[in-house]
Amino acid sequence: VRVIAARIDGLPASMLPLSDRGLAYGDGLFETILLHRGRPVWWAEHLDRMAAGARALGIAAPASHAWQADLAALCDDAGATLPPRAVVKLILTRGDSARGYAPDAAAVPRRIARLQAAPADDPGWRRDGIAVRWCDLRLSRQPRLAGFKHLNRLEQVLARAEWNAPAIQEGLLRRDDGAVVSATAANLFVVAGDRLLTPRLDLAGVAGICRRFLLARAGAVECELDEAAVHAADELFLTNSLRGILPIARLGNRSWPRGPFTRALIERLAAAEPAFDFETDR
Amino acid sequence: VRVIAARIDGLPASMLPLSDRGLAYGDGLFETILLHRGRPVWWAEHLDRMAAGARALGIAAPASHAWQADLAALCDDAGATLPPRAVVKLILTRGDSARGYAPDAAAVPRRIARLQAAPADDPGWRRDGIAVRWCDLRLSRQPRLAGFKHLNRLEQVLARAEWNAPAIQEGLLRRDDGAVVSATAANLFVVAGDRLLTPRLDLAGVAGICRRFLLARAGAVECELDEAAVHAADELFLTNSLRGILPIARLGNRSWPRGPFTRALIERLAAAEPAFDFETDR
Repeated sequence: VRVIAARIDGLPASMLPLSDRGLAYGDGLFETILLHRGRPVWWAEHLDRMAAGARALGIAAPASHAWQADLAALCDDAGATLPPRAVVKLILTRGDSARGYAPDAAAVPRRIARLQAAPADDPGWRRDGIAVRWCDLRLSRQPRLAGFKHLNRLEQVLARAEWNAPAIQEGLLRRDDGAVVSATAANLFVVAGDRLLTPRLDLAGVAGICRRFLLARAGAVECELDEAAVHAADELFLTNSLRGILPIARLGNRSWPRGPFTRALIERLAAAEPAFDFETDR
Repeated sequence: VRVIAARIDGLPASMLPLSDRGLAYGDGLFETILLHRGRPVWWAEHLDRMAAGARALGIAAPASHAWQADLAALCDDAGATLPPRAVVKLILTRGDSARGYAPDAAAVPRRIARLQAAPADDPGWRRDGIAVRWCDLRLSRQPRLAGFKHLNRLEQVLARAEWNAPAIQEGLLRRDDGAVVSATAANLFVVAGDRLLTPRLDLAGVAGICRRFLLARAGAVECELDEAAVHAADELFLTNSLRGILPIARLGNRSWPRGPFTRALIERLAAAEPAFDFETDR
């Protein structure tokens, strides 16, 4: 990841105090936000998810204008070098550690904001679809943390470490009880007839912002899905807030042609949000 | 926590690069080691657990002489200010992040070593026993991470946040299937007749170093324990590698008098390891 600029609590910084609980316990949250021609995409939705996560962890969420000021400062830092497509990563930690696991009521949460180059993208992924695999790692079930984008991500790291082949773009994750959850860094949608389904995330997984868009605007429905339902899908795709919708072309031995349902959703997303109009934008 | 000195990869440092995966994902491990009159207690056992955790995470563990050099440097840094009882906290992270969750094979793991004041201790805890409670939070089951002291500790943070009363020293944790696991920062032992039992940690929990001592040297046996077995115990105690053995005097409405079994173990531990001979040492 190429870092263009970084701020901690509003000030230019590239280093974190060793006493931060984000390092000690993963005691915090993060968001990765697409910055398209200087405009953050789904900004309010990202801050909303972080605020919900902060409530769940009992961390006082900063006011949104503080993050807004960080964003403006990062763009100033970048100046003319700001690429048309970039990523803003926000991290909120509980601040410095006082006495072991016990949160210190007096601790001041720490805001970290980092401007990074956008990840590599291939137009072929959207046109031809991507190849995915099943991960062996099974996600544990923790209703107190499910849905939030917290800093405890070892399960995703272990799952992503299962393959190296560049031909495989993502891995699908199941819970320990067999229910399908998501990919390692994307949500999963299943087209079954005229229904658009996505796994419930009340026990495991991260509730993505692009997923939220499809739930609100495309009639998608949350449900329990098992492996067989995924293999039997008419169409499959992944979503994330940096890449939008990525059709799945291959999963293990099964392959899918370009699906009309997914194509229509890619067009609808591009119409609603210019950052995802990859055809026009390049 | 009062920090006396800190080193990163052998050099004096108090700040961590923001790009470290320990912050981003909790992608690493830690150990907190009692330093008694300049001597690390159970040093080999702590490094052994960290090496096992590093194997599980696919992180190249540093050679033990590197940690040994860090420890010597920290003691030099402290000089005459080194207290008779201190704590060395070691953190091993996967190093800097390259491309999301995927571990970068070229990443160089980062060693962090910190010398801290020992936590507050009360001789009454060992003499009269401590008061503990049941935590509401249920631990999730993840066999790939269970037993290791990794940096994903939000469950422990949430559990420890359940109470503030200074009269309660610890909280007991159950898995989501009801099995008893440990306290938030200590292992649990149950005396049942002439048997010494401690929960299995193959699905959740941290396999403590003092626990390992009692398994190897005091005939303790790992088993599945439920809440009823804990309440029915003849004696109960906690262990951790900074405090040794702490008898439990109260759990909810139930209380226990000083137990002969626990007292004998406290004496045996003190005989084996002078750092835990609190009577003679003060």
